[in-house]
Amino acid sequence: MANKAEKLLIIGGSDAGVSAALKAKELKPELEVQVLLADEYPNLSICGLPYAISGEVANWRSLAHRGLKELTATGVKFQMNMIAEKIDSQQHEVVVHSLSGELKVYHYNHLVVATGAKPKLSHIKGVDLSRTQQSRKVHVLHTMADYFAIEKNLATNDTQEVAIVGSGYIGIEMAEALKKRQLDVTIFQRSTEILSTVDADLGQIVHRKLSMNSVNFVTGLTVSEINENNRNVEVIGLNERHKSEAYKFDLVLIVVGVQPNAELLIKAGATTGIAGAIKVDQYMHTSLPDIWAAGDLVETKHHLLGETYLPLGTTAHKQGRTAGFNIAGIQRAFKGSIGTQVLKVFDLVVARAGLLASEAIHAGFDPLTVTTVVDDHKAYFPGSQKIRIRITGDKKTGRLLGVQLIGHYGSEVAKRSDIFATAIFNDMTVAEISDLDLSYSPPVGSPWDAVQIAAQNWEQQNTKYLLPLNRKPV
Amino acid sequence: MANKAEKLLIIGGSDAGVSAALKAKELKPELEVQVLLADEYPNLSICGLPYAISGEVANWRSLAHRGLKELTATGVKFQMNMIAEKIDSQQHEVVVHSLSGELKVYHYNHLVVATGAKPKLSHIKGVDLSRTQQSRKVHVLHTMADYFAIEKNLATNDTQEVAIVGSGYIGIEMAEALKKRQLDVTIFQRSTEILSTVDADLGQIVHRKLSMNSVNFVTGLTVSEINENNRNVEVIGLNERHKSEAYKFDLVLIVVGVQPNAELLIKAGATTGIAGAIKVDQYMHTSLPDIWAAGDLVETKHHLLGETYLPLGTTAHKQGRTAGFNIAGIQRAFKGSIGTQVLKVFDLVVARAGLLASEAIHAGFDPLTVTTVVDDHKAYFPGSQKIRIRITGDKKTGRLLGVQLIGHYGSEVAKRSDIFATAIFNDMTVAEISDLDLSYSPPVGSPWDAVQIAAQNWEQQNTKYLLPLNRKPV
Repeated sequence: MANKAEKLLIIGGSDAGVSAALKAKELKPELEVQVLLADEYPNLSICGLPYAISGEVANWRSLAHRGLKELTATGVKFQMNMIAEKIDSQQHEVVVHSLSGELKVYHYNHLVVATGAKPKLSHIKGVDLSRTQQSRKVHVLHTMADYFAIEKNLATNDTQEVAIVGSGYIGIEMAEALKKRQLDVTIFQRSTEILSTVDADLGQIVHRKLSMNSVNFVTGLTVSEINENNRNVEVIGLNERHKSEAYKFDLVLIVVGVQPNAELLIKAGATTGIAGAIKVDQYMHTSLPDIWAAGDLVETKHHLLGETYLPLGTTAHKQGRTAGFNIAGIQRAFKGSIGTQVLKVFDLVVARAGLLASEAIHAGFDPLTVTTVVDDHKAYFPGSQKIRIRITGDKKTGRLLGVQLIGHYGSEVAKRSDIFATAIFNDMTVAEISDLDLSYSPPVGSPWDAVQIAAQNWEQQNTKYLLPLNRKPV
Repeated sequence: MANKAEKLLIIGGSDAGVSAALKAKELKPELEVQVLLADEYPNLSICGLPYAISGEVANWRSLAHRGLKELTATGVKFQMNMIAEKIDSQQHEVVVHSLSGELKVYHYNHLVVATGAKPKLSHIKGVDLSRTQQSRKVHVLHTMADYFAIEKNLATNDTQEVAIVGSGYIGIEMAEALKKRQLDVTIFQRSTEILSTVDADLGQIVHRKLSMNSVNFVTGLTVSEINENNRNVEVIGLNERHKSEAYKFDLVLIVVGVQPNAELLIKAGATTGIAGAIKVDQYMHTSLPDIWAAGDLVETKHHLLGETYLPLGTTAHKQGRTAGFNIAGIQRAFKGSIGTQVLKVFDLVVARAGLLASEAIHAGFDPLTVTTVVDDHKAYFPGSQKIRIRITGDKKTGRLLGVQLIGHYGSEVAKRSDIFATAIFNDMTVAEISDLDLSYSPPVGSPWDAVQIAAQNWEQQNTKYLLPLNRKPV
């Protein structure tokens, strides 16, 4: 054999794929590592696209976590515009075609499949994912091609009224971005309140913030059909009284969630689990020999829920890195997600970690949820802001299950959610939050930090929890 | 007996005393709770005094954590201007005198002594703590009376040149405050660099920030004598070449550290430990029957060091609350300090938690310290700032021992130190920091948060730690 070098092949050049490639190459430099990309934009921060559209990021190229020069300097090779067609797990081969249709076969010793997710559109008539990048008026926002297509059409003078179907993180970030472009924006949401990843009253605070910034809303409408014609595009749906409603726009952006992009691995025989996601072990190994998977196409271990499907960029990075460690021969497990998420919307920041009360009940806990409005630092020092901290804990065990926070940008809301995330990761009780030795100086906190005041408030209201403690005679 | 109510008496109306009083009363409303104060300013945020002096806080009254109305509404009684003279632990009595010299005897069932600390001045000739509040030119900053004395003398036109002896947190905060009052400020520091609670090169960054804001420094001078006369006050000390130096100022502020204010309990027979601090068990009970102590006068349990003396407001709050729980019959232990501290100086924030490398060596660890300079959020989103994160971990076990951070005010430096503080509290390894599911959105973080990038950098450099892991054949 001419070439005896051990080969790591990676399909997918986004968070998970690049993380796996870099970690494996770093730890085992003798590995020959190749990354196959479906486009020519490796390691782009897709989460940053709304800020490119808003103009806050002047050049989309700066969205790259690492530039191609930095990436290739590691010794990892990148093959652009290569679409993987078929994996032969017995032969350890992947059949790939280039944009021009040319076929190529790659042999591997280890394969990482990191093909991510794809928009979930099947419930909307008239939308074809394969055509959105060519469309002038109907778009998704999932790849750089989507971004370029949106930019091209926003640049025309006749785009003024834009619909956003879906009110999750990306929908809300895009609403803000498009307002910054001076466009008319309407958000469509199936349920009665936006941002369903947090409790409805917190979603309402975000809703009001967007309304104050002239974003329009159609809530309680299940969009069922989108019709594009030469003049405009129509959004059609059923309202809560089962009546059809129709609205006309110049452009529609659909951001209603994703599903695993797992066909390649499924066709190769990989086992799937929840939501059709690929099953992996704690080392990110699939059911197929020498094939690993990481990122938005795999079933994710949740610290509180067990197996779930919860695609997040942070998780993709961790899972890719985990695969890289193990491929290089250093055993590392993926320790699980707790679904930590944060959103900036105008001057607000909203974050969550762990479970909502509704999710906790579903998972068999007996939750108590208590909300505290508290200063980010001593109110006497200039610039203090109120943070709303909602703690969900288990009544019987006192265990911290989840937290939601909303406050002003600049009030350390995100990193306060991360204190809770660290506590949940370590299975702490709500009461133990008060034992933490957290930093204090009047301009940045309080002798009891906001997170501890919220925890103490929860503890005071959980009489069931407090009273059975060793109440000794005094 | 006329009054059979169970009595909790508390000596000291600052952080620890008030925390004990409120928690005990909340949990056991039938307790008769009285707090004896040496002055008439209960529950004042002494840490806020520099901001009253700077003018950032317009009225010192707003420094109160709680106003007297809020405090008395809880049912706790406050006796002002009462100096405790003697504790009779057998008789369960405290002899107290009022300002006018009147004696009074209080009976108690439970006694909490929370008399705090007092400035350490014995090594400086010419300074008498009992006279500093009457002095026109020599001051400490420890009580409201000190604050009033400083304010009175700053208000005169002939105070222009001020010396600050000591360059810890309060010294630096006061330097900034006095610059905001347009005064000439000179900091005196015994060692060669200021802010000895962090590594010298980080102290130097703070030093430069102060210099850029026209604060003067005399370092390497051990102040041995302070001479006040009608015209000015002379600061005299020995430099590193053992030569005497003398400097003249209009006012001198001495902030060189504190010692336990424990005479009352020592005279009553309480056992003492490190630095003459009162020994307490994990419930904050002293060696004397029914006598508890909390705050700056007690020996403190440190999570990594065991017993130590480390007076901090955050710890005083925790210890007071712990005493309150136990007095009310609910067993709670003080879980230990890790010495978390944060300082804002102009637009910088510097924080630490856990141990410096020097302290780790002293405690028997084998530390590796790695510094990472990293963006607070994705650099492509406007307003990103560099944070310097220094991680100290144990080479052999990988255990996280300590962290130091320095960055821009507004970069969530304080709460990032608290993520590490939470990790240290939970005995995490440095590597496990990367397992944490932390929040990410480009305006507030990165897919790997700054704290994780710093942890990964440490891990990469600790080859001793990485290589012995289960390196399985591939």
